[in-house]
Amino acid sequence: MPEVRRHRRSRRSRGKDSTAGTPSAPPYLTRKIPLYEVLGEEGLVIIENNAETILEEIGVEFRDDPEALDIWKQAGADVQGERVRIPKGFCRQLITHNAPSQFTQHARNEERSIIIGGGNTVLAPAYGSPFIRNLDEGRRYATIEDFHNFVKLAYMTPHLHHSGGTVCEPVDLPVNKRHLDMLYAHMHLSDKPFMGSVTASERAEDTVEMCKILFGDDYIDPLSGEPKTITTSLINANSPLTYDDTMLGALKVYARNNQACLISPFILAGAMSPVTVMGTATQALAEGLAGIAFAQLVKPGAPVVFGTFASSISMQSGAPTFGTPEPTLVLYVMAALARRLGVPFRSGGGFDAAKIADAQAGYEAANSLIPALYAGVNFVLHTAGWLEGGLVMGYEKFIVDCDQAGMAAILLNGVDVSENGQAMDAIAEVGPGNHYLGCEHTKANFRTAFYRSPIADNNSYEQWKEDGEMDLAQRANAYYKQQLAEYEQPAIDPGVDEALRAYIDQRKAAFPDSNIA
Amino acid sequence: MPEVRRHRRSRRSRGKDSTAGTPSAPPYLTRKIPLYEVLGEEGLVIIENNAETILEEIGVEFRDDPEALDIWKQAGADVQGERVRIPKGFCRQLITHNAPSQFTQHARNEERSIIIGGGNTVLAPAYGSPFIRNLDEGRRYATIEDFHNFVKLAYMTPHLHHSGGTVCEPVDLPVNKRHLDMLYAHMHLSDKPFMGSVTASERAEDTVEMCKILFGDDYIDPLSGEPKTITTSLINANSPLTYDDTMLGALKVYARNNQACLISPFILAGAMSPVTVMGTATQALAEGLAGIAFAQLVKPGAPVVFGTFASSISMQSGAPTFGTPEPTLVLYVMAALARRLGVPFRSGGGFDAAKIADAQAGYEAANSLIPALYAGVNFVLHTAGWLEGGLVMGYEKFIVDCDQAGMAAILLNGVDVSENGQAMDAIAEVGPGNHYLGCEHTKANFRTAFYRSPIADNNSYEQWKEDGEMDLAQRANAYYKQQLAEYEQPAIDPGVDEALRAYIDQRKAAFPDSNIA
Repeated sequence: MPEVRRHRRSRRSRGKDSTAGTPSAPPYLTRKIPLYEVLGEEGLVIIENNAETILEEIGVEFRDDPEALDIWKQAGADVQGERVRIPKGFCRQLITHNAPSQFTQHARNEERSIIIGGGNTVLAPAYGSPFIRNLDEGRRYATIEDFHNFVKLAYMTPHLHHSGGTVCEPVDLPVNKRHLDMLYAHMHLSDKPFMGSVTASERAEDTVEMCKILFGDDYIDPLSGEPKTITTSLINANSPLTYDDTMLGALKVYARNNQACLISPFILAGAMSPVTVMGTATQALAEGLAGIAFAQLVKPGAPVVFGTFASSISMQSGAPTFGTPEPTLVLYVMAALARRLGVPFRSGGGFDAAKIADAQAGYEAANSLIPALYAGVNFVLHTAGWLEGGLVMGYEKFIVDCDQAGMAAILLNGVDVSENGQAMDAIAEVGPGNHYLGCEHTKANFRTAFYRSPIADNNSYEQWKEDGEMDLAQRANAYYKQQLAEYEQPAIDPGVDEALRAYIDQRKAAFPDSNIA
Repeated sequence: MPEVRRHRRSRRSRGKDSTAGTPSAPPYLTRKIPLYEVLGEEGLVIIENNAETILEEIGVEFRDDPEALDIWKQAGADVQGERVRIPKGFCRQLITHNAPSQFTQHARNEERSIIIGGGNTVLAPAYGSPFIRNLDEGRRYATIEDFHNFVKLAYMTPHLHHSGGTVCEPVDLPVNKRHLDMLYAHMHLSDKPFMGSVTASERAEDTVEMCKILFGDDYIDPLSGEPKTITTSLINANSPLTYDDTMLGALKVYARNNQACLISPFILAGAMSPVTVMGTATQALAEGLAGIAFAQLVKPGAPVVFGTFASSISMQSGAPTFGTPEPTLVLYVMAALARRLGVPFRSGGGFDAAKIADAQAGYEAANSLIPALYAGVNFVLHTAGWLEGGLVMGYEKFIVDCDQAGMAAILLNGVDVSENGQAMDAIAEVGPGNHYLGCEHTKANFRTAFYRSPIADNNSYEQWKEDGEMDLAQRANAYYKQQLAEYEQPAIDPGVDEALRAYIDQRKAAFPDSNIA
């Protein structure tokens, strides 16, 4: 596939931006500050060599998928049982020659199409929680109404660039049919790009079919003659060193249809990888190389994103921990390895193990998001809403994370070195001992001068008391309700909408309800 | 002053470390990861040139201090009234030729002496709050008992390297005498290095006299024949471009006695500097150059630390804001400018405008501390305890910030690239699809594998419910009380202790109580 380089940068209205005072968001972030790395060339080369040794000598298991094993055999790998041993350098060469370094994920509103890769950062909501939490109801199982709510909130915030995928599990719907309702929600309640279903190959096929309906004549890119990349879907390795038939089945469907896969080892270091940063990074690279190379064997040029979800565990209890320093180091190493491999990189932001949106959630989420920004992550999954190690999608947490995402945009935009930025006129005008509040430069710049949070409290103590001594979560609670009350659905072609519903009805009618995944 | 390079790195017992499971802390952090910069050479040179233009054309006011103006006149500056205009390049040359690039601040326990500058990072508690807050009492004025408590807590945590200065204002004591009680608290309740009084030149002189008593025959460095640097004290500019007699008076006392000064423009950008990053950095550099050069005129070689306290204000209300992206950019720029000037650099960590230790406090504090780490800040003031823009010292906030400081140590320590770090044996032993919990490598490394927080909750939701659904602040509340209950005072020579008390008694008797600062 040739790299799709066309994209639009227009900043015209893209839905309601209710965060007054913040600059209008571009469809994704474009980094203007340098990357940060923790490890030099020498350390990275050690990891790369060790990963190749793992692939050749230990190998990776591709389980319950004879076709996958055939594909590897035909490619010349040493396949014994389900164990695939791959000659050193094979995966890297295949990826370097075929996988695009960046690609466009198209939204139905072309102004919201994003480029994944290069110097760009896309922020997406959290993914996969069976529970939700809000201050009014506490913690409970998620429903399709919650799913709709989070799609609406992600649509409304200017600080997320993506509608996400399983923003929460609508457990009130049958497990074998809920993917249809989730896809439809992303398609009609939002016009941002979204993720596809990965829990079975038929559900990946449903995703592709619904994308064809949604895009109609626009589904095929006239330049390449290939399907446009409309979904980016999450393919997790079963670390250590294993891929299962469910994930492989979805991967094959998406790759063959030119839809993108985030190929992500999901690692709780200490349990699913060694207890060291280097060991974890080495295993994750081996897993990523095998998965991405497999996608390129299925379809050369298939758009892929290398990802890691790497956290660590408490060595006392075995519980996953978040926002700790070791996974931060892993993140920087993995991002550098992905750049050297020449593919876009995905990680998470906003992680925490906190049960509620308290100070622990704040510290841990910031400790996760900030490194993702400096590391140059191209696709930040789990930017907003994550609580309790991913078990819970928090309404208030979603809002406070979006606020942090807004600040991220300003950070990545770097320093304005223009004459206006230098502000020498202002310094001369004001002089020693005076203040800048009324000077000409301030008057000309104050509207865009500093990030304005809609939920942070910077008032006096007395004012805060008068306002009811609310914590951040309480202010976020009011804010998300106001957002949902103000939500307006983006227009969708009635014929397309009807066709999507007809497809869903027909598919739902074809099977009895089932709650077996 | 010749650079004092002797220091001890022994990690023998340095008081009670009650944070079980965390590695024993060195007396300060030594960076093993790269620095981060947001601006290239070109941008930094623009700022440096603009700052020199400010010094020459606009000048800096040195108010109510005729001696200071005389010193500048004798140095060849253009002094008109209280306005001092300094030829381009003069300050930089003076600083480069005289100010040490790093220096040792001695603690009475030499094993806790720190080196400020170079690749080192020293974390110190918050400073200057008139109020305290804890969950039991809410917000109230601070007392000397609170002051003692925070000195004890800072002494006990392995994650702070410094006892700080005015850890809170003991407003129950007369304002003209409380500095004596504060100094005595640092001297006898802790053996970590501490800060001196800056609120009047006599109080700076008291600080020096008490240091002489505390160190006795050790006060003079036998190698240099100079007094050892025992205090590092906070000299704020009155931005924009003004120094007042109080700060200048303390600065002169400390410089003449070879005690270190943190010379810090205190800036709320938008009010006390232009609304832009470049403008704020330029003004702060001009202020820093003038203040540090003045210290070198007072005593060539006086140990100094260039600092910035730069936050921004809400352009709606004028209230200071913290943890926002613009001050982060200022921080990176200032740290780079300090390195180019060849002096150690100070900033803050742990800042927030939150009233309580909620998610806002967590996000904002992390947004402040993390950049300080990547920027290579040598002295991080306000690492722990800061609430409400510095008006409040929070007990629970102090504990959670210390926990973050513990994580900082691991981050700065970087990636272990040894064979044990690479963990190839572990990956070979475990193989695809198994887990690492019981493997030899895990058994050999699990004790030090991952940072263990004493207060973060990583348990299951069910366990958390059973434990009372506590938020982080509630767990920190229990933790600080336990710490205070377990506190043991470090031994002090009874003769020294008696002499300190006699000095304090004599000084207190010399004046009537006053609450006029």
